Amino acid sequence: MLNKFKRLFTNYELLSGNYGIEREGLRVDERGGLSQNKHPQVFGDKVTNPYITTDFAESQIEVITPPFKDVKETYNFANALYDIAAMEIGHEYLWPQSMPSIVPEDSKIKISEYGDNDKGRSAQKYRESLISKYGGKRQLICGIHYNFSFSENIINKLYKAELAENNNITYREFKNSIYLKVTRNYLRYRWLIIYLLGASGVVDKSYVGKCLGSTKKIAEDSFTNEGALSYRNSECGYKNKIDLFPNYDSVEKYIESLKGFINDKLIDSYKELYSSIRPKPSDPNDFFNSLLGDGIQYLEYRSIDINPFERGGVSLEDLYFLQIFNLFLLVKEESNYEEWQKEGVENQNIISRYGQNNVTLKKDGNPISKEEWGLEILDHIKNMNNELNLGKEEIVDLMIDRIKDHKLTYAYKIEEKVKKDGYINAHINIAKKHKIESYNNRFKLEGYEELELSTQILMKEAIKRGIKVEVLDKTENFISLKKNNKVEYVKQATKTSKDSYITVLIMENKSVTKKVLRDNNIKVPAGVEVNSLKEALAIITDYVNKPIVIKPKSTNFGIGISIFKDGTDEDSLRKAFELAFEHDNTVLVEEFIKGKEYRFLVIDDKVAGILHRVPANVKGDGVNSIKGLVEIKNQDPLRGYHYVTPLEKIILDESAELFLKQQNKDFKYVPEKDEVVYLRENSNISTGGDSIDYTDDISNKFKDIAVKAAQAVNARICGVDMMLEDYKDENTGYAIIELNFNPAIHIHCYPYKGTERKIGVEVLKVLELI
Amino acid sequence: MLNKFKRLFTNYELLSGNYGIEREGLRVDERGGLSQNKHPQVFGDKVTNPYITTDFAESQIEVITPPFKDVKETYNFANALYDIAAMEIGHEYLWPQSMPSIVPEDSKIKISEYGDNDKGRSAQKYRESLISKYGGKRQLICGIHYNFSFSENIINKLYKAELAENNNITYREFKNSIYLKVTRNYLRYRWLIIYLLGASGVVDKSYVGKCLGSTKKIAEDSFTNEGALSYRNSECGYKNKIDLFPNYDSVEKYIESLKGFINDKLIDSYKELYSSIRPKPSDPNDFFNSLLGDGIQYLEYRSIDINPFERGGVSLEDLYFLQIFNLFLLVKEESNYEEWQKEGVENQNIISRYGQNNVTLKKDGNPISKEEWGLEILDHIKNMNNELNLGKEEIVDLMIDRIKDHKLTYAYKIEEKVKKDGYINAHINIAKKHKIESYNNRFKLEGYEELELSTQILMKEAIKRGIKVEVLDKTENFISLKKNNKVEYVKQATKTSKDSYITVLIMENKSVTKKVLRDNNIKVPAGVEVNSLKEALAIITDYVNKPIVIKPKSTNFGIGISIFKDGTDEDSLRKAFELAFEHDNTVLVEEFIKGKEYRFLVIDDKVAGILHRVPANVKGDGVNSIKGLVEIKNQDPLRGYHYVTPLEKIILDESAELFLKQQNKDFKYVPEKDEVVYLRENSNISTGGDSIDYTDDISNKFKDIAVKAAQAVNARICGVDMMLEDYKDENTGYAIIELNFNPAIHIHCYPYKGTERKIGVEVLKVLELI
Repeated sequence: MLNKFKRLFTNYELLSGNYGIEREGLRVDERGGLSQNKHPQVFGDKVTNPYITTDFAESQIEVITPPFKDVKETYNFANALYDIAAMEIGHEYLWPQSMPSIVPEDSKIKISEYGDNDKGRSAQKYRESLISKYGGKRQLICGIHYNFSFSENIINKLYKAELAENNNITYREFKNSIYLKVTRNYLRYRWLIIYLLGASGVVDKSYVGKCLGSTKKIAEDSFTNEGALSYRNSECGYKNKIDLFPNYDSVEKYIESLKGFINDKLIDSYKELYSSIRPKPSDPNDFFNSLLGDGIQYLEYRSIDINPFERGGVSLEDLYFLQIFNLFLLVKEESNYEEWQKEGVENQNIISRYGQNNVTLKKDGNPISKEEWGLEILDHIKNMNNELNLGKEEIVDLMIDRIKDHKLTYAYKIEEKVKKDGYINAHINIAKKHKIESYNNRFKLEGYEELELSTQILMKEAIKRGIKVEVLDKTENFISLKKNNKVEYVKQATKTSKDSYITVLIMENKSVTKKVLRDNNIKVPAGVEVNSLKEALAIITDYVNKPIVIKPKSTNFGIGISIFKDGTDEDSLRKAFELAFEHDNTVLVEEFIKGKEYRFLVIDDKVAGILHRVPANVKGDGVNSIKGLVEIKNQDPLRGYHYVTPLEKIILDESAELFLKQQNKDFKYVPEKDEVVYLRENSNISTGGDSIDYTDDISNKFKDIAVKAAQAVNARICGVDMMLEDYKDENTGYAIIELNFNPAIHIHCYPYKGTERKIGVEVLKVLELI
Repeated sequence: MLNKFKRLFTNYELLSGNYGIEREGLRVDERGGLSQNKHPQVFGDKVTNPYITTDFAESQIEVITPPFKDVKETYNFANALYDIAAMEIGHEYLWPQSMPSIVPEDSKIKISEYGDNDKGRSAQKYRESLISKYGGKRQLICGIHYNFSFSENIINKLYKAELAENNNITYREFKNSIYLKVTRNYLRYRWLIIYLLGASGVVDKSYVGKCLGSTKKIAEDSFTNEGALSYRNSECGYKNKIDLFPNYDSVEKYIESLKGFINDKLIDSYKELYSSIRPKPSDPNDFFNSLLGDGIQYLEYRSIDINPFERGGVSLEDLYFLQIFNLFLLVKEESNYEEWQKEGVENQNIISRYGQNNVTLKKDGNPISKEEWGLEILDHIKNMNNELNLGKEEIVDLMIDRIKDHKLTYAYKIEEKVKKDGYINAHINIAKKHKIESYNNRFKLEGYEELELSTQILMKEAIKRGIKVEVLDKTENFISLKKNNKVEYVKQATKTSKDSYITVLIMENKSVTKKVLRDNNIKVPAGVEVNSLKEALAIITDYVNKPIVIKPKSTNFGIGISIFKDGTDEDSLRKAFELAFEHDNTVLVEEFIKGKEYRFLVIDDKVAGILHRVPANVKGDGVNSIKGLVEIKNQDPLRGYHYVTPLEKIILDESAELFLKQQNKDFKYVPEKDEVVYLRENSNISTGGDSIDYTDDISNKFKDIAVKAAQAVNARICGVDMMLEDYKDENTGYAIIELNFNPAIHIHCYPYKGTERKIGVEVLKVLELI
């Protein structure tokens, strides 16, 4: 088999597939009490939000990543979903553990509400039957469901190879046989996954019952038994009342066996079969027919505990390991030992309950130590990794270490923490750490850091509300947003279907913008256009000693621009014209407008934010030097390098040194308390400038003018740059100097100072997606 | 005065001003008969169309240029309006002469219809009163009205200079005084304008009456008197029954005198004062109040005959001359001769009736020969031109020659033609020549040749319909279209407010376009994207020996693209990938689609045109060589150089020579009859390719697909590029290879072969302007 793989595939192909995870988590208060609050309204309809919903209980959040081709993306998205959820649950925390926090009486567990309609009532009823059958506490157990499929290309090539030997098999049959083999092998080898990923070897006092009778108290309210690894996967976990063994020989037989269980009233529905793996059809709402008709589409592994040390509930290394473990299950020849299903369950039970000890398992009926068998499997995997050049050797070595030393298991590590702080506090401390991380990540969407911040913000707001997000072109920040049957395409967060092309083209052309604004009686700097130096010289005397700006019509970077704040003589004007004409055939002569520049972000006839930027600076505390003050200021998580954060770190470079020298200061200078020292001339964010929110500080008069300007060009999203001589004075001088069709939103969402504005939501409103 | 001007102004300032003309013209049939047809419907409402309306008679078209700062623009626009009008009057012609063609009985002259409403009925009634008072034939006389104002800058500077001496005068009073001085001087010197520009010294038999009793027949039905220059300006022309002399001392006195004429029943309205110059207010609908309140805004010269030798009715040289003549009138000190108004009329009458002879005029009561006085004035103008560096010396010299030699007058020149062909035929021949020129100009808008053809076409269609057109940015082809209170901005003819920005951005991104089309079940070439050479090499074996195209994601000019029509080996594929990755980080591997490319222009869910391009070629006639055939083909006025025409001339360059060599041919080869010889590989129009209209030849099936593609990206104007293996076969292979958000329209409007499609009109419909 391995040779066949070597022949048929490149490593690139073998590592391609689709990977998604579902992760449940209880909302709890600071003392571990189950939340009595409703699922946050912002997450919208639980039935239709594809990313964030609830499981059994109203307080049991379930986040679901879409399938990704790269497990790194899956990992990132799981973290991102955690970040989103954690920021919307107020003072609550997401319990970072499969086994529940404090379990209340069954009657106090609020079952998920799905709305007062047929579907909602039936979902409610199903859950009520579960609670009466299995008890509420088991329903509160949370876990990771790992979904994967091989790339169609792999199955296709294997099928073609198979046809050479067996030309009676259809593609669907062959694909089913592939996934059923993996399923059977998963059941044989699942104990290893439970061992390597298990993290639920301690429970709260409130969980202890008959099943866990032999446990002992290891800290306040914290109970375990010697060597426990995963109560969730143990007989005291999420299990059917008796072990059920479906037939995995073919899809037909599988369905037949499940229907048998239902007929025998062992379970009410296929959903109630709590097997550690499930073959999945294309249409989950028509399980049997879809499975029979279209075949198995993907597999769901259900044995994986929540990893408390990961926000997203699973580590990247473990996901990489699972990726090659899947291949191992596909490659590995099966033994013909008949009692394999029963043996698998027994091994699971032993590992779950005593896996940290040196337990003996059974392999095809023969005893074998956990370590010996584990190493045998991992050696096999390592060999496969090397033969197929999969590049995951380090990951396999990590697992080899883990099987050799139980102290490297998550179960052991969390148990140590529980021993120190108690079950509840140990987990709440972890949850707090995760939540702080989410807060510090609030301006970005994990895994999408290559996109502009504005796009990340918009996507985050969309995902939160269950709007399906797809990146169509990463380098262009081109995404689609889907809700129900509606699709909106968005580029760079503010380029949408809601603004017309000509609106954008007007804003793109400074001279046309001015004409349109002037036609609409909106104040812009007075000025004229000249089309030749001759023409310019003919009017030059009119501008002697007047405060003006001379600039080429189309340049964005200050090139060729001359500013005469206090006017100048004819000779200097001539030189300025000559310079400008070097860059364009049309040159603008504009009145110089005094004051400071403010960015008014206008969205749908309302000012959503006003921002002003100031050059990089520090404010003295009377103690620290400029250097020290910069270091302190740079610790703000909003500051980073290279535009991956809303603000940039201040760099004390030569240009800052020069600028300080002009003020007779240097980096060692200690500013007095409250003394503000500027470090640059320009106010660009890119050179460490500060952004300050003025939305609530500026008169409605100027907001109305900004709105009128946006309306003049018919823009629904528009960045209006306005000069204001004195922003506090209603009667101050002003003029609009530019309109921007692709205004950044992150600067308003995460300013250095002032209120954070939720602009992403406003954009979603413009798009009529909320 | 001249010294003051020298001190105050640059020549650039002195030549700035606003210049517009109105030009009337009779619609006639091939034999000079007055048209009985209605004003063409396409010109819309006569009252609101600012460019094309009617004057007295329904068959008397009046075209009006907006005021332009440069007389060259005015000249061009007058020609453009002629071109537009001439192309919409079917088999009729625009009579190129101020004096009418064959004048019918008064009862047969259809008065302009202005609609069955109060305003329309009152306009009708006014015209009926005119016909009964002056007779129909005089109302059919046509002319040029020349409107001008000095630049506000000139008046302003003169005003400031004046204030130093007279600080009691207001700006309005001063401005009025300026224009009234020019008015008075115009009346003194108008005879010279009549002489220099007069062109109506012959009339048709049907016009001859009492007034023209002394004329003689010079050709069939053609009458004149010895030396006649401008019957239109003579006592037999468009005149009040008795000479009226308004008071031009001040605006107040001017109004008072006009009101006196009306009170005395000499005229019914100020409009009926047929003076050779009129001071104009800002609001023509409230003449007296507006003139009194806002002062004189501009002047209207009314003595200028239609120049038969110019489509637009006036020559550029004459417009340049008028420009400096205006300045002369402003500079020239006035004499205090009291009878100046009467003298002015007498001189006008002499020049109009006998100006070609050596007549004697009166200057301040003293006799002076036409030539002596004319030269005196022109010397004065020439001196002014030199002192103020106006650069119009050649134009003045032209006029000096004309005053010296009556054979250089338009009147003489047209008289010579009439003597040869008769009054009617001579003018109809000229009209025919003009009309052919208009046809050959049909793809462009004179004066706007720097704009793209698509924009010229759109503007032409707009102007035709009375939609106000303004060029906001020439280099960007940015225009505004105004109708009533609605403004639409358009860039490059098809970038409008009607397509959303994201629609454009989707089309701009080939990879996103494909995704969206595929999501909408529209066939695009199958393909994958790879993001690294490593990734590419991993899939390379799948594409061996398959017809594919390998291309960088974002390149437009064929750079880095490899096409393997019949597939190739792994090594060549690797090289193609390497090449592509030199140009982009993302590379597309696409199925190669067989067939030919067709451009479907979709506008508002309909295919407005289908075009296919073929490489530069000639079709043999069995006689001419390739060189000869190219010369013949290049004579098509649709072919030109450098994209100012819809097609480019074929150039027989080295590359054509090489291409022919491969076919064992050279430029001297004589193709057999109907043998088609291609001269290039590529089918670009820019290298002399042919565009062929297929709109009516391609199945609805493919039109529906093109429409569906445009709908998928929500585009209202969209160029869909489709490959069709065999356009005649409904079941042929096809795929959409590209969508274009700024499709050229001129290629469909003026193809080499096939029906000319009126796409400009379709765009105006999209804009809801018609």
